[in-house]
Amino acid sequence: MTMIPQSQDRSAFEQAQFLKILSREEALARFEATLFPRSIPAERRKLADALGAALAEDVTAPIDVPPFDRSNVDGFAVRSADLVAAGEGKPVRLGLNGETIQCGTAPRLQVAPGTATAIATGGPLPRGADAVVMVEHTQPAGSDTIEVRRAVSPGQFVSYAGSDIARGEALLRAGTIIGSREIGMLAACGIAEVKVARKPLVAVISTGDELVQPGQRLAAAGIYDTNGAIVAAAIDENGGEAVFLGAIPDDEAKLEAAMRGALADADMLVLSGGTSKGAGDLSHRIIGRLGKPGIIAHGVALKPGKPLCLAVCDGKPVVILPGFPTSAMFTFHDMIVPVLRRLAGLPPRSDAKVNATVPVRIASELGRTEFVMVSLVEGKNGLVAYPSGKGSGAITSFAQADGFLRIDALADQMPAGTATEVTLFTPHVRVPDLVILGSHCTGLDLVTAGLAHAGLTVRSIAVGSLGGLAAAKRGECDVAPIHLFDDKSETYNSPYLVDGLELVPGWRRMQGIVFRKGDRRFEGLDAKEAVAGALSDPACIMVNRNQGAGTRILIDRLLGGARPEGYWNQPRSHNAVAAAVAQQRADWGMTIAPVADAAGLGFIPLAEEHYDFALVTARKGRPAVQAFLDALGSDEARAALERAGFRPA
Amino acid sequence: MTMIPQSQDRSAFEQAQFLKILSREEALARFEATLFPRSIPAERRKLADALGAALAEDVTAPIDVPPFDRSNVDGFAVRSADLVAAGEGKPVRLGLNGETIQCGTAPRLQVAPGTATAIATGGPLPRGADAVVMVEHTQPAGSDTIEVRRAVSPGQFVSYAGSDIARGEALLRAGTIIGSREIGMLAACGIAEVKVARKPLVAVISTGDELVQPGQRLAAAGIYDTNGAIVAAAIDENGGEAVFLGAIPDDEAKLEAAMRGALADADMLVLSGGTSKGAGDLSHRIIGRLGKPGIIAHGVALKPGKPLCLAVCDGKPVVILPGFPTSAMFTFHDMIVPVLRRLAGLPPRSDAKVNATVPVRIASELGRTEFVMVSLVEGKNGLVAYPSGKGSGAITSFAQADGFLRIDALADQMPAGTATEVTLFTPHVRVPDLVILGSHCTGLDLVTAGLAHAGLTVRSIAVGSLGGLAAAKRGECDVAPIHLFDDKSETYNSPYLVDGLELVPGWRRMQGIVFRKGDRRFEGLDAKEAVAGALSDPACIMVNRNQGAGTRILIDRLLGGARPEGYWNQPRSHNAVAAAVAQQRADWGMTIAPVADAAGLGFIPLAEEHYDFALVTARKGRPAVQAFLDALGSDEARAALERAGFRPA
Repeated sequence: MTMIPQSQDRSAFEQAQFLKILSREEALARFEATLFPRSIPAERRKLADALGAALAEDVTAPIDVPPFDRSNVDGFAVRSADLVAAGEGKPVRLGLNGETIQCGTAPRLQVAPGTATAIATGGPLPRGADAVVMVEHTQPAGSDTIEVRRAVSPGQFVSYAGSDIARGEALLRAGTIIGSREIGMLAACGIAEVKVARKPLVAVISTGDELVQPGQRLAAAGIYDTNGAIVAAAIDENGGEAVFLGAIPDDEAKLEAAMRGALADADMLVLSGGTSKGAGDLSHRIIGRLGKPGIIAHGVALKPGKPLCLAVCDGKPVVILPGFPTSAMFTFHDMIVPVLRRLAGLPPRSDAKVNATVPVRIASELGRTEFVMVSLVEGKNGLVAYPSGKGSGAITSFAQADGFLRIDALADQMPAGTATEVTLFTPHVRVPDLVILGSHCTGLDLVTAGLAHAGLTVRSIAVGSLGGLAAAKRGECDVAPIHLFDDKSETYNSPYLVDGLELVPGWRRMQGIVFRKGDRRFEGLDAKEAVAGALSDPACIMVNRNQGAGTRILIDRLLGGARPEGYWNQPRSHNAVAAAVAQQRADWGMTIAPVADAAGLGFIPLAEEHYDFALVTARKGRPAVQAFLDALGSDEARAALERAGFRPA
Repeated sequence: MTMIPQSQDRSAFEQAQFLKILSREEALARFEATLFPRSIPAERRKLADALGAALAEDVTAPIDVPPFDRSNVDGFAVRSADLVAAGEGKPVRLGLNGETIQCGTAPRLQVAPGTATAIATGGPLPRGADAVVMVEHTQPAGSDTIEVRRAVSPGQFVSYAGSDIARGEALLRAGTIIGSREIGMLAACGIAEVKVARKPLVAVISTGDELVQPGQRLAAAGIYDTNGAIVAAAIDENGGEAVFLGAIPDDEAKLEAAMRGALADADMLVLSGGTSKGAGDLSHRIIGRLGKPGIIAHGVALKPGKPLCLAVCDGKPVVILPGFPTSAMFTFHDMIVPVLRRLAGLPPRSDAKVNATVPVRIASELGRTEFVMVSLVEGKNGLVAYPSGKGSGAITSFAQADGFLRIDALADQMPAGTATEVTLFTPHVRVPDLVILGSHCTGLDLVTAGLAHAGLTVRSIAVGSLGGLAAAKRGECDVAPIHLFDDKSETYNSPYLVDGLELVPGWRRMQGIVFRKGDRRFEGLDAKEAVAGALSDPACIMVNRNQGAGTRILIDRLLGGARPEGYWNQPRSHNAVAAAVAQQRADWGMTIAPVADAAGLGFIPLAEEHYDFALVTARKGRPAVQAFLDALGSDEARAALERAGFRPA
């Protein structure tokens, strides 16, 4: 993606980039001013193919709907004046005219005084009639006479011509997205074709030597191309038609050819990757050669998203999104969607907003407007917005968020407890049925699977054991999964509980030493022997765990004060430990058995960790909590946990 | 569509139908119990083609994302322990290892104490390193050495393997609708294909001799087939794939062949039309021959929607929707969508609800749960829900509503001022920028066109002059268009205004007598002569207007107390008068010049009507109101009004 310059290249590299950082507002304003106004290409489309398209012109009703005065019931077309005196004891007899007006047949005969004509629902009112009497409110009196025992008001059971839609009225406005309801209104007027905005064709290119397309084998140091697929899908969701051209390696000639080809065919080009600092950053150079005016903004005072680049080449927008998935998607959502929607003839998106409180302090960088992706849960006093702790390099920061909050460029933090506004990514929040905040375990997914399939929404936010415990104390979740070791009592979890919380036993996870199978320094040894051997070999590198992890306490005990090579490599998860060993960044570490198995590593068992649940007593009565407790105790869950290598408590 | 039986057929007809009316809940429960549980057919689909589909199985993350410990910045991979003592005045020198770790290239060399390796954003951390220092925080010191002037914490600028997505965690659950965010998560894991629920193929048939497909010429007494198009589109919107088979005439053999063919190919069949009472009602008879168990419910205690028929034939759902468009769409939304979504593997729809007050009394039928379609506007104390006055025969009752409210089966009304809950058809209410409540005029559409194109949302609800005036007094709209004649002062509109409202002049509409061109009884006469002639000819039928209309006052004055043939035919709109004359249900009436022109009728001008606006003074400062007033006074609007036959005031 990028390359580090050294020596002579270095100062040029440092000066070339981000010299003119624009504010978000100014960058967008310049981009739009260069692109608009412009005429939006339109095409005629059959009604059945127009679902989801945007109308390109106002539509005026060409006819009255209904087109005639229509009967709303099965009955008889009458003159209301004939029935003024009718009542229960005073039947009025009407002679039947010699026709039945059915749907689709025009009446031939006039309803003269003292007569009635049989009429079906939907039939046109005949000349002379001004009301309809329901068949149920009449009695036959011979073969050509009826009796009516109630008066009718003029216009009864008649829908007058134009009462639904009046000829000449504005039926739909340009820019309206055609849904089923619009299709109904158009069909009712007999309109079979509409002029809709042609979807802009948007070419999508990923750049970077490291990118591997999903479905292909992941080479060492390679990563899957996330942005190509997500950007293409987001274009389709926002009125465009995406054409994904694949990932192009960092080769100037190849990339230029791909970009030129894309702009020849498409209305817009979106690249992702290649926007970080670094000399490998080719796309910008190429844009300068693709057409006027070229780059409009490169570098926006926006976090995430600073490296965003906006350009216009011969009238066509060209965008280089940041390489990190959440940066790419947030800037796409915030800065590109407004332009895409205008190109697609769509009205501005209206984002829904909700008020929420932040449960923790959120640090922010001074000088850049910062947008923080958040997940929403229901707290004691309304919604609580949990920031994603994963950063803009993680796809899940964006993909699992409900929306985002904004921290002003002049603030260096948002204190815990701040009431703020959250802009939603979807039109409304569906408050989950069950909220789980704490340490995540794949065993938990096995327990909640049945709940999800039964239609309960389960939201699990990984905030660690201590984060979960704090949230449970504040009443922001139903259960907090924890595995906290108490050094003094040498027990797990229960010493950490307070009033209002109760402990629900979960399962045990065997912790132990992992190593690459076949490594003679570990194979066949017990834990003490293995550690002793590792400590005596300076070439043998460990991977540690973060301060505060239960596993870390175990490791420190085993090391007995030693600080071997790798001690400061302190990832925060069992999976990261296994990956470091499997990929030879380390030779040994401590993780849990199922993770070691999944990574194909050797494992020396040491001690069980207790993974339990702090249950918020006040929320115990909720049906979803009961369903969770039932699932936890079920034979199915126990069996699934055992199959996965856990030991149910 | 239906046919009226007479004499001998009649009692059978009366008994056969609606013998067992079920409650809405029971009908739906029986229907679902017959259809479910069942396995949902699934198919594998490429990620790029899966947008909008429902996942058919849980997806577990097959890899860690990122797959290795990744650098988040351009910089140098270091050992944090080496830099513990570094500071502004205390630079630490590190020797550079002989490689640069770029994206996509695996490191070859170990970072030994006192060394560093250049690493690009996205590059994998080399063995021995536990942190990254940003290039900006270093200085070159010769060609193979750097100086670092700040300490780094372990893990700085490193995203550990699995920190975004951990191998083995539940990534997505079955039933999830795949949007761009889900596509991003799947792509990040390298998943290129997913198993999704196959969209159920739903055949749609309209029935009725009177139905004309949009785009075809409308014959006398024919109406356009609205339900075919809107039902097909609503199926597509709710997870199905609709196949519209057209309108089949009321012919038992033809209809049975069409239904059998549809069920052979499709997973579900939806018919509309043919569900009212009447002997022409063939579809039910045919269903009995199509498969077991047949009809589950025919007649539901639901308004609109009573004639709904639910059936299952050899495992496939068959539905006959009511013929009236709003009945059809409401029952589809309420009773069929839940089943369709289950067939499509989708989770239940979650309808958004809002609280609102009803501004007027709403009458309801005892014994049936009644759902009333409403439009929402912002009142002084929250949302106000205006009922659609058009009834279930009108497509606009449904298509222009924001949602519906519910009146219990045991209530015969909902009093004005009731606070109630409105279920929304769309996920959130967009409160319109400009609310116009009152009498509608096609001239108004000309004035508001520019506002709509400028992105302002304009909601115009036709409630008549008096309804608009009442709403304006309650502060529920911005402007109320009115044309109210005051008999005493012989002036329009101003006598009706109260404190808090001010009159904004609109335009004049010429009222006059309409007749079919060439009718010698009217051609070339003035109004008085024409009416005198009409009154003297018993075969000459008039069409009147409703009590309360300004035009009605004019007519009564002209008639001077006479009650000619047709006097009791009292439609509520100018368009209905023109249609009655054009279609020979009447010979003359009174309407306005533009409507007479559009209908191709002869016109004898009589007196101008004043169409003005009662403006709510308190809302005058709103930008949308100012935009409306600007548009009203603009040269463009005046010219457009004149072209359309109105005379701007």
